[in-house]
Amino acid sequence: MAGAGFESLERCLEKHLPLADLQEVKRILYGKETRKLDLPSRAFEAASKRDFELQGYAFQALTEQQRRPRTLRMGLVQNRTPLPADTPVVKQVTALHRRIEAIVEVAAMCGVNIICFQEAWTMPFAFCTREKLPWTEFAESAEDGPTTKFCQELARKHDMVVVSPILERDTEHGDILWNTAVVISNSGAVLGKTRKNHIPRVGDFNESTYYMEGNLGHPVFQTQFGRIAVNICYGRHHPLNWLMYSINGAEVIFNPSATIGVLSESLWPIEARNAAIANHCFTCAINRVGEEFFPNEFTSGDGKKAHRDFGYFYGSSYVAAPDGSRTPGLSRNRDGLLVTELDLNLCRQVNDIWGFKMTGRYEMYARELAEAVQPNYSPKIVKE
Amino acid sequence: MAGAGFESLERCLEKHLPLADLQEVKRILYGKETRKLDLPSRAFEAASKRDFELQGYAFQALTEQQRRPRTLRMGLVQNRTPLPADTPVVKQVTALHRRIEAIVEVAAMCGVNIICFQEAWTMPFAFCTREKLPWTEFAESAEDGPTTKFCQELARKHDMVVVSPILERDTEHGDILWNTAVVISNSGAVLGKTRKNHIPRVGDFNESTYYMEGNLGHPVFQTQFGRIAVNICYGRHHPLNWLMYSINGAEVIFNPSATIGVLSESLWPIEARNAAIANHCFTCAINRVGEEFFPNEFTSGDGKKAHRDFGYFYGSSYVAAPDGSRTPGLSRNRDGLLVTELDLNLCRQVNDIWGFKMTGRYEMYARELAEAVQPNYSPKIVKE
Repeated sequence: MAGAGFESLERCLEKHLPLADLQEVKRILYGKETRKLDLPSRAFEAASKRDFELQGYAFQALTEQQRRPRTLRMGLVQNRTPLPADTPVVKQVTALHRRIEAIVEVAAMCGVNIICFQEAWTMPFAFCTREKLPWTEFAESAEDGPTTKFCQELARKHDMVVVSPILERDTEHGDILWNTAVVISNSGAVLGKTRKNHIPRVGDFNESTYYMEGNLGHPVFQTQFGRIAVNICYGRHHPLNWLMYSINGAEVIFNPSATIGVLSESLWPIEARNAAIANHCFTCAINRVGEEFFPNEFTSGDGKKAHRDFGYFYGSSYVAAPDGSRTPGLSRNRDGLLVTELDLNLCRQVNDIWGFKMTGRYEMYARELAEAVQPNYSPKIVKE
Repeated sequence: MAGAGFESLERCLEKHLPLADLQEVKRILYGKETRKLDLPSRAFEAASKRDFELQGYAFQALTEQQRRPRTLRMGLVQNRTPLPADTPVVKQVTALHRRIEAIVEVAAMCGVNIICFQEAWTMPFAFCTREKLPWTEFAESAEDGPTTKFCQELARKHDMVVVSPILERDTEHGDILWNTAVVISNSGAVLGKTRKNHIPRVGDFNESTYYMEGNLGHPVFQTQFGRIAVNICYGRHHPLNWLMYSINGAEVIFNPSATIGVLSESLWPIEARNAAIANHCFTCAINRVGEEFFPNEFTSGDGKKAHRDFGYFYGSSYVAAPDGSRTPGLSRNRDGLLVTELDLNLCRQVNDIWGFKMTGRYEMYARELAEAVQPNYSPKIVKE
């Protein structure tokens, strides 16, 4: 069905499987079980009143002699766009600010230290339309646009690092647009920004019509709570993108996304989780929820009739740990806040067990890749 | 439990879930459904008589104008070691030859064109012991050892490409050992060999005691049926290893493995499948089955008592397709043959949809990796 009718994989398994089978299925599917996090009842009450789902889980690490636990709480937010896409731009942005503010308040009740919103969170995902106005009017300055200012206030008020993925207008460089995530320190200062490194040309994801591949490389942000990076959306399909963030020291890599059921739903549980395993870090996959309808109809390059909807954003945001375990997903059909408690010491502990960096042979791959991109490269094919 | 008691994830879900839910769960977990392959009843009868599981599935591709379908049938074999590890070496090897011969005969009845056996298939996975004799006596010449000769006969007899992962003794280079896969053409000629590129230092996988990282790079073998490569065992944790085989043109990448429940079972469905997605190719994950006991006790570097068993090899061999769909796994507790029919045209079709190679920015990564491996590299960390 790929639409809103099916709430979540986990809820379905829990409903139907006998306990012993459920445990075995969960072990194979999800690895070591994550503990349910004891969140304050007023947080659940507020979430219920504000009509969004709240789930909390904890990952654990071993105790070390030389390092104290580096425990933090992370918040992942998934949401619908509350107003129709044909509402005036400023109204839509304001409504999204209000919605996020209400969710972040609950995150604060839950003791969240770092929060990340979904890709291009201040707007409908309008790139399917290939229309420029009004959609490019959602673009803002990363440094001092209204959304960054709004997030700075949130950060200061709640002592929370805020990762805010927006459409950026780069007035310093000829007014071009970027798909960008702004990272704001819990002090309220803009720590920096990072840009989407890989741009899709898939189905209705006509993003290459609007912005180019990011030019900021793979920066990692040292926050008070740990080192974080942001791999935006389509970058999750590129293992090298995750790898370079990890080589630069990221302990948590966020993957704010916007993706729909028919295209990617069976890939969703695989890619970010594989990246957590391959890079000995935590990964956070965030997807928006619901359907968005646009004023003018458009076609999808699939031979089908013109239409006004992009498809079904299936939510299902989750966190994966370096040991390959993961939280259940948020629902497929509701706004939600996923709170996870984690001890970053787990990253190095798993690194020391599995050793993928030590055994990675990156010199060899740097050389092989440099050869492979040459126009006259001959693939190494053995023939009889 | 992580032992033999639980037969398979798929069997469990099929037993307990109502049909509509089962379909939705399968869609989310496995993507587009694979069709059951209609295999000859005499093959099922022979498999039953010879006490191994036989399963068959088909992946489909679209019809093209300029290329005919490039359909082939692949066989993946998972098996126990039939004799105890303290039996004389030559008896163990002979018993394994006989067992594989019996399974390959059934593969031939099923029209299999390319078959791949599990890692170091002629021996128990004795590297846990750190003892040299008798285990190094299982090593053979890749070019003309008894196992290669045996596989050449199989290949000729059944007109089948055979991928034979063995422990190789390299007499031309000082009698060193390698973990190698020999690729034998359906003509019976040795097409070439490829070596395990990444060697684990994890738990009881003391393989670095026996052999070093492969020195043959990432060769791809052009067979009559398609271009294949072999990423042996621990190499599946390294996305760059898969990538280089893919860049060199592999349409099918085999991953013959030997891995146990407590270490890797929840990673197993993720990594090879992620590689199929990320590289627009088919991947074939093969694991051995059951327990192996060794004559002398050994410890595992985990503070626990010495013991004689390595752990439970959980089978669960499967094939993943470039569109992210996959077959169910073979069972966790029986020898098995998984036959898949696939049209290699699907690789380029998915490549043209998702475009991960085109959007891969390998020049950037070649440069970044080359910088990152320098001893004086400073990770790109942004601080407040």
